[in-house]
Amino acid sequence: MNKKKVSLKDIAEKAQVSTALVSYVLNGKEKESRVGHEIAAKIKAIAREFNYEPNYLAKSLRSGKTQTIGLIIADISNPFFANIARIVEDEAKKYGYTVIIGSSDEQAEKSWDLINVLLNRQVDGFIIVSSENTEEQIQYLIDKNVAFVLLDRHFPDLPTDFVSLDSHKAAFDAGAHLIEQGYRNIGLIAYKSRLFHMKERIRGYRDSLEVGQIAFQPEWLKEVAFHTVEEEIKAGIDDMLASDHKVDALIFATYRLAIAGLKYINSLGLKVPDDLAIVSFGQAEAFDLYYCPITYVLQPMEELGKTAVEILVSKLKNSNAEQQQILMQAQVMVRDSSRLKVPVA
Amino acid sequence: MNKKKVSLKDIAEKAQVSTALVSYVLNGKEKESRVGHEIAAKIKAIAREFNYEPNYLAKSLRSGKTQTIGLIIADISNPFFANIARIVEDEAKKYGYTVIIGSSDEQAEKSWDLINVLLNRQVDGFIIVSSENTEEQIQYLIDKNVAFVLLDRHFPDLPTDFVSLDSHKAAFDAGAHLIEQGYRNIGLIAYKSRLFHMKERIRGYRDSLEVGQIAFQPEWLKEVAFHTVEEEIKAGIDDMLASDHKVDALIFATYRLAIAGLKYINSLGLKVPDDLAIVSFGQAEAFDLYYCPITYVLQPMEELGKTAVEILVSKLKNSNAEQQQILMQAQVMVRDSSRLKVPVA
Repeated sequence: MNKKKVSLKDIAEKAQVSTALVSYVLNGKEKESRVGHEIAAKIKAIAREFNYEPNYLAKSLRSGKTQTIGLIIADISNPFFANIARIVEDEAKKYGYTVIIGSSDEQAEKSWDLINVLLNRQVDGFIIVSSENTEEQIQYLIDKNVAFVLLDRHFPDLPTDFVSLDSHKAAFDAGAHLIEQGYRNIGLIAYKSRLFHMKERIRGYRDSLEVGQIAFQPEWLKEVAFHTVEEEIKAGIDDMLASDHKVDALIFATYRLAIAGLKYINSLGLKVPDDLAIVSFGQAEAFDLYYCPITYVLQPMEELGKTAVEILVSKLKNSNAEQQQILMQAQVMVRDSSRLKVPVA
Repeated sequence: MNKKKVSLKDIAEKAQVSTALVSYVLNGKEKESRVGHEIAAKIKAIAREFNYEPNYLAKSLRSGKTQTIGLIIADISNPFFANIARIVEDEAKKYGYTVIIGSSDEQAEKSWDLINVLLNRQVDGFIIVSSENTEEQIQYLIDKNVAFVLLDRHFPDLPTDFVSLDSHKAAFDAGAHLIEQGYRNIGLIAYKSRLFHMKERIRGYRDSLEVGQIAFQPEWLKEVAFHTVEEEIKAGIDDMLASDHKVDALIFATYRLAIAGLKYINSLGLKVPDDLAIVSFGQAEAFDLYYCPITYVLQPMEELGKTAVEILVSKLKNSNAEQQQILMQAQVMVRDSSRLKVPVA
């Protein structure tokens, strides 16, 4: 970085041609400007000799394209998002795009920072797993006419492209499955959040009870804050177990909640599913290796990630592409943690 | 993006001051240039009124600083790296840096792409978890005098700053622990890789056998390829169990290897640790929730990540900062999967 940069002008002087001509040739536009083959070869040879390094940044500013996608995820340390990031990268690469990633850690402020940093770095477009309270940022991108697709989480009131899970249906299916297996006192541990997908999971769970003709008990629903998950889950499970309508089954609305909950359930010496049946959102290796494999809501991660890339790429090619709003279906993968309830003797 | 950009000149004309003065004020340098408070306020008001957006990119090109760090990790879908990324982000934020992340997926070619993309995006420096065969890229960064720190993996022949684990000592301790617990036929499943840390883990394991006066058997060591882990682990474990020196304990050199191995061990109906004791590198939720909590090599992830950021930030402040090469110590966290061997009756 200490060496003096070689400029187009330096090359032009040496080649005794105009700077514009050098620029045309080094930007691969010699055909357009009908530069002779020989003079083009000469310019390229001099550029090589001078160790000329094109200023990509300036180049990008002119072309307006950088072939990069900014991916903002809500939390990189959550395996669900980390795996989605991997899928987005692989898919983007097929279209010739490099992905640069930022993690907002579920903080609106950090999400703003990242959007600005990546906009300033001239990404062509964004794929965003939104954090809470970021509607304003999304509106900003709409207003600036930036190409983006929301992934996994969307705002029903904002007119954006998105690919999400049908969270209401998924949670409904999880509840209905437990009812079918003979469980009656079913709790849900979810996040306390304004995010739509979380509200939908709660609504789906409550609808499953209603359809199953089970009277919902307020102590069955615990909404815990992002930053005090462990303590609140412990208190919540204690409360559900002490209730007159003691829970015999629990649904976790996310992977993180399940991990914290299962650790606490283990520490209480409760056996899954005899003491407490379990269904969780989010597939994970930890669920496979658990002594009693955990029934989980399989989210079509591969499809979610790939589709988001496809939509974004088509928007980048054609800014008038039709808006796409896709809700994908999850599937309850039944395993031992929700097996048929053994009636108490 | 379609609106005409407001320039400093537009604001200067309206405020009836020089463009330079506007630039000083909007770049927060009014104190340096002793601009009066009133005129500064007036300029800011006009900038707001005009919806002036500073051209950060041009600004960065001038200052040469973007307050961003590029973090290249080997595989974002590996929880160890995803967690390290989170730590690096949190720490960098304390110093006012935003982190943008790329994942090389253990591919040298992808790592090149990312280095180029992030260099072109003018990151101030890099933190890199290197993939195999990337020595050339690291040398390129040295030659270009780019500030960077290697994290978790380093190349002993390259004169770079790094923060890594003392992998030899960690693997030695894992082997010594199993020997102490009464195990004699100890296998190691590692990656087939030229990467130094992997070679060191193999060397440490072999040294532990030697010090324990156990004759190493070639079939105890399996080096599996990144892209055929599952098949090779199955074949490797089959081979170790069929051996005349049938293994009674296994060390996994990484988290991914352990997950694949434990799944296979479960499917064989083997009980940990009675049939097979286990020690693994890499802490993970899956190890905590396993029916028999897995003894693991605790890597000081927090310290690794934080120290890498500290070194990079000090290099960015002072390009003559002394080179730092730090090997951190791991700790064997003893749990049930390696409890005292019960002698066969």
